[in-house]
Amino acid sequence: MTGPVVVLSGGVGGAKLVLGLSRVLDPAKLTVIANTGDDFLHLGFAISPDIDTILYTLAGLVDPERGWGRRNETWKFMEAIEHLGGETWFRLGDADLALHVERTRRLAGGAPLSEITAHLARRLGVGPHVLPMSDDPVRTRLGTDEGWLDFQDYFVRRRCEPAVREIRYEGADAAAPSAAVLAALGDPRLRAIIIGPSNPLLSIGPILAIPGIRAALANRSVPVVAVSPIIAGQAIKGPTTSMMRELGLPASAEEVARSYEGLIDAFVVDPVDSKAVFPPAIRVVAAPALMKTIEDREQLASAALAAADGLAHAPSV
Amino acid sequence: MTGPVVVLSGGVGGAKLVLGLSRVLDPAKLTVIANTGDDFLHLGFAISPDIDTILYTLAGLVDPERGWGRRNETWKFMEAIEHLGGETWFRLGDADLALHVERTRRLAGGAPLSEITAHLARRLGVGPHVLPMSDDPVRTRLGTDEGWLDFQDYFVRRRCEPAVREIRYEGADAAAPSAAVLAALGDPRLRAIIIGPSNPLLSIGPILAIPGIRAALANRSVPVVAVSPIIAGQAIKGPTTSMMRELGLPASAEEVARSYEGLIDAFVVDPVDSKAVFPPAIRVVAAPALMKTIEDREQLASAALAAADGLAHAPSV
Repeated sequence: MTGPVVVLSGGVGGAKLVLGLSRVLDPAKLTVIANTGDDFLHLGFAISPDIDTILYTLAGLVDPERGWGRRNETWKFMEAIEHLGGETWFRLGDADLALHVERTRRLAGGAPLSEITAHLARRLGVGPHVLPMSDDPVRTRLGTDEGWLDFQDYFVRRRCEPAVREIRYEGADAAAPSAAVLAALGDPRLRAIIIGPSNPLLSIGPILAIPGIRAALANRSVPVVAVSPIIAGQAIKGPTTSMMRELGLPASAEEVARSYEGLIDAFVVDPVDSKAVFPPAIRVVAAPALMKTIEDREQLASAALAAADGLAHAPSV
Repeated sequence: MTGPVVVLSGGVGGAKLVLGLSRVLDPAKLTVIANTGDDFLHLGFAISPDIDTILYTLAGLVDPERGWGRRNETWKFMEAIEHLGGETWFRLGDADLALHVERTRRLAGGAPLSEITAHLARRLGVGPHVLPMSDDPVRTRLGTDEGWLDFQDYFVRRRCEPAVREIRYEGADAAAPSAAVLAALGDPRLRAIIIGPSNPLLSIGPILAIPGIRAALANRSVPVVAVSPIIAGQAIKGPTTSMMRELGLPASAEEVARSYEGLIDAFVVDPVDSKAVFPPAIRVVAAPALMKTIEDREQLASAALAAADGLAHAPSV
């Protein structure tokens, strides 16, 4: 079981599992396909929140309390911007700014996001391959009871307050996976594809909305294992469950598994959820899913890999 | 003598005199026309070094040691940019960055530099009117023994090392003074125009290269007084004298006065230079020209104003 592994990930929760995977695998054999549906332009900077969280997490730079941004961050820039009457609803730390400035500068120079991300990962000493899901723009937009909102408007500025009625991944239909994404998913030595414990609607949804990626999972020749972002009806982080309820969906691990039906072979849930009723075609594996310590991350990563390896040897795959 | 005063200024040296003027005049009656020939794009930011130095100086935010940038500045952004392999030859402090981000964002939105500068000045609590010499781009370029260099390349990256053979103010011929600049220079109540102790080649040269501004001085109906940036053959700051020598010019206060011939009525020099031979049409006024303390700035400002006021009542004007 030494083949490469691909993991689909959003920000904080997914990044924790990615870190665990990078510690139980040869990092060079781990490829992360990151959601870019939350990417946006702010103060003139091209910001890729999920890529940044994954990079900072893998580089050991992430703020341990927030789970995103940089540890030991300072905020002199934001104080000065506020003094000048600029926009302050999305807070950019002094060191964090550098990542956005470099990305923006290189994008303006014509480099694709995947190339820029690879450069930044190299400079930060990140071992796994971190790939944006596409070099084409995909923008998650939310139809709320206050009208359509861009993701960051909804998530940061409005603090997830407007009730969500509909979600669109604008541009996803026309977005192509980058060559590196297709190569990773089509690698004949591939061991498994893992879907991280990220919000299925906001983080994994945009990735799976790209036809080339969805097709790769639907036509998989290796096990696909998803890890539940919900434990006992509660999201580990963020608005997952409240948004599911607003959309008229049951806020449960079962519902997340159901949403992945046809794309996954196994679903890793916390032991408290293992007695729930899951779609019959999905093998359910129980493992502690709350990742507080680094050991929690490694164990959940190992459980997801074990689930995949078990399927690879089972007659059902 | 309560009419408004206009001062032409570059960065550090000029800003010190501007500060002095703002303290001996009603600040609302002082208009600064700032050199923008050094403006450049760096890391995607529109940077206006002389405007920034003037704003920070008047706002009491300037670093007292360097004379430019902000006091109590931190450099987390630069450290992170360096870590990412970005450009570090032009150093941008964490708080200073905010000014460039706001300017860049507003320029991208279509606002003219003069409107943006007025907004920033207001936010910083700056009393005098600070005007870019033009909303049109003018770029000072230096023909050196290593070829043509942009100003910041020469000044910061190459630390003024290549010998200068020629100077061009690209775009100046086609640049129009902004409406505010023309209004300030044409104000019927105008008391005086002062040329600050800035580098005549790099800071005042670009301003005077704009035909509309040069014509306003050549056709002046009020006294124009220049303050020498050279004391006893030494520039108070920067490469003024070495550059004059490289260009085959005498590095002296007299030569600065000569370069302004036809545009000024009086020239304020340090007492050590008052015995030199100046162009006969220019009245020479001696006053201590080294500005170390705030009192020095106020006294030099008062001396320049007194020189103008003396000329206004003399039959020769």
